[in-house]
Amino acid sequence: MSFAAPRIAPFQPPRRILMGPGPSDVPPRVLAAMARPTIGHLDPAFGDMMEQLKALLRYAFQTENRLTFPVSGPGSVGMETCFVNLIEPGDKVIVCINGVFGGRMLENVRRCGGVPVVVEDDWGRAVDVDKVAAAFAAHADARVLAFVHAETSTGARSDAAALAALARAHGALTLMDCVTSLAGTPVLIDAWGIDAAYSGSQKCLSCTPGLSPVTFSEAAIARVRARRVPVQSWFMDLNLVLGYWSGEGRRTYHHTAPINPLYGLHEALLLLAEEGIEQAWARHQSMHDTLRAGLEALGLEFVVPADERLPQLNSVRLPAGVDDAATRARLLDEYGLEIGAGLGALAGRVWRIGLMGASARRENVDACLDALAAVLK
Amino acid sequence: MSFAAPRIAPFQPPRRILMGPGPSDVPPRVLAAMARPTIGHLDPAFGDMMEQLKALLRYAFQTENRLTFPVSGPGSVGMETCFVNLIEPGDKVIVCINGVFGGRMLENVRRCGGVPVVVEDDWGRAVDVDKVAAAFAAHADARVLAFVHAETSTGARSDAAALAALARAHGALTLMDCVTSLAGTPVLIDAWGIDAAYSGSQKCLSCTPGLSPVTFSEAAIARVRARRVPVQSWFMDLNLVLGYWSGEGRRTYHHTAPINPLYGLHEALLLLAEEGIEQAWARHQSMHDTLRAGLEALGLEFVVPADERLPQLNSVRLPAGVDDAATRARLLDEYGLEIGAGLGALAGRVWRIGLMGASARRENVDACLDALAAVLK
Repeated sequence: MSFAAPRIAPFQPPRRILMGPGPSDVPPRVLAAMARPTIGHLDPAFGDMMEQLKALLRYAFQTENRLTFPVSGPGSVGMETCFVNLIEPGDKVIVCINGVFGGRMLENVRRCGGVPVVVEDDWGRAVDVDKVAAAFAAHADARVLAFVHAETSTGARSDAAALAALARAHGALTLMDCVTSLAGTPVLIDAWGIDAAYSGSQKCLSCTPGLSPVTFSEAAIARVRARRVPVQSWFMDLNLVLGYWSGEGRRTYHHTAPINPLYGLHEALLLLAEEGIEQAWARHQSMHDTLRAGLEALGLEFVVPADERLPQLNSVRLPAGVDDAATRARLLDEYGLEIGAGLGALAGRVWRIGLMGASARRENVDACLDALAAVLK
Repeated sequence: MSFAAPRIAPFQPPRRILMGPGPSDVPPRVLAAMARPTIGHLDPAFGDMMEQLKALLRYAFQTENRLTFPVSGPGSVGMETCFVNLIEPGDKVIVCINGVFGGRMLENVRRCGGVPVVVEDDWGRAVDVDKVAAAFAAHADARVLAFVHAETSTGARSDAAALAALARAHGALTLMDCVTSLAGTPVLIDAWGIDAAYSGSQKCLSCTPGLSPVTFSEAAIARVRARRVPVQSWFMDLNLVLGYWSGEGRRTYHHTAPINPLYGLHEALLLLAEEGIEQAWARHQSMHDTLRAGLEALGLEFVVPADERLPQLNSVRLPAGVDDAATRARLLDEYGLEIGAGLGALAGRVWRIGLMGASARRENVDACLDALAAVLK
């Protein structure tokens, strides 16, 4: 018995301008890097590349953390890697929710057997530092504070430095989602005192999706080493992953690393190093200023107050009478422009316009404003 | 405060002939596909590609299972996806161990709170069907039988049809690792009655590592839906992943799929469909026959008995007096040839010579035999 082979042609993706909440436009140099010949994950030449990748990621995270590497999976795996390693059953965790990804953190805490203390804020607003202080006052035994620095579902930026300082003052570790912020707006792991952070390869780093840069402080590593209960995930157990990524002595096999996507991430991080991270932050801000002026001229209103806005993710309310799905379909079909729909509680009510990484450039801003002007006419 | 950007040059991988236990040589068409422009994971054009990918994977697995898709992570994530969904705390699981990957299955069972019943066989031998029958006789309440079809650490092939028949007769589900067998030697999911199987993109499919094709029978899906306890992993929970990959009605966001690696897998599966899966199996066998004759002429002895051998993974004993690491380093440096070291209990005692996917071709066999003849002289 044998099933017949399907007759299918090679896939040729259509031409798109990616201005949703990720992925962003991937530069030709990164695409070309991914097409270089595959070599083995234990090849010494690949090992050298891994060490460079770690150094480049330390630059992106602005950290000296030795445990800084890309998890072999999307941002959601980076998130879960942080939670399953740092949380033990019964651990109290303060979880801040001001959008979809804070909610996903809560799901992770629950599935690790943690005891969540939820601090809720309105979607579209930053996490309220005073509420978190009150949560610590009421729960002095909280072992971890978890929050999203840049809420991808709304475009709100929270005060990571203040939140991490609170956690430190209460002897808790800080676990931060910086999927949308890394390389687009300042992320200062060491200066802020963040203990564990995860990001994604496909937003302001402009690599293909599928990798999740993570970084852990020495205090976080000590917490993992002192666990009483094994990490529930074999794949994500840092005690095991470290044998491959630590680079201390002989590199031991854990899993087969995604070779070609890692070539792409290496090249994407080179582009960041060549531009300079402060210049990259400034470019995102400058493109945001231009886009914002144009969107406001079209009569579109921002969801997030000005001082809590992320330059790289612009959430605007749908104008009255505009059909969400039909309009986005027109933008895609007629203009090759992808913008993001609302997520969760904001579905059907907002659009999310990304200016991430290589997408944060003048041609994209102009193309987006022209297309929106045409379809909203 | 700002850390300085590291000065690093683009990574140019050295030229290699990949004849280890994976990754295998990635064909130019697959590399080129990965360099196509990134589009969004919710783009309708990408959705069409996903449906094609599922059809192509059904062909590779020889199944009609509707739940057949690539997990966004390496084979180890595919493995863990199968275990965390099918095993609930307290479930009795018969786990067959005849190499490293059976041992990894046992780790997974434990971390899911399952109650393992271990059936052990010598490394380098197939799983003994009689021992598994005895285990079922002693443990009639076993809910799952887990085994590795093609042990990547030894090159032994087990009798999947007989093992699955035993499980079926005892009302247990069958969970099979076919990381190394898929597309290199027959894997007949429906004909054998396998309920859950996972593989890898980088072995006989010759795509980049980092994706794990999986397939689940209706009985497996029913087991997942009937769970009393939530799946411990948010990322791997099939109830959630299905919203994105099911293609039934509206596709909902779960995580950002690894776009460019999926282009590569699509192209790799097209190559398989174009060649024909039976022709691919025959090619692996024929290249193995040639390689085997050459290795035996060099005085090398196979670890696995002839009737239990995988054509695509050839484990041979190190000749007396040969320095393992130094010889493999010479092969890599002087001949650009990667072969695999022994793993686990076989470390330092065997070499694993892969003939997987695009690496299973005459030039590679000749290059390998020439290089081995030179360094063993």
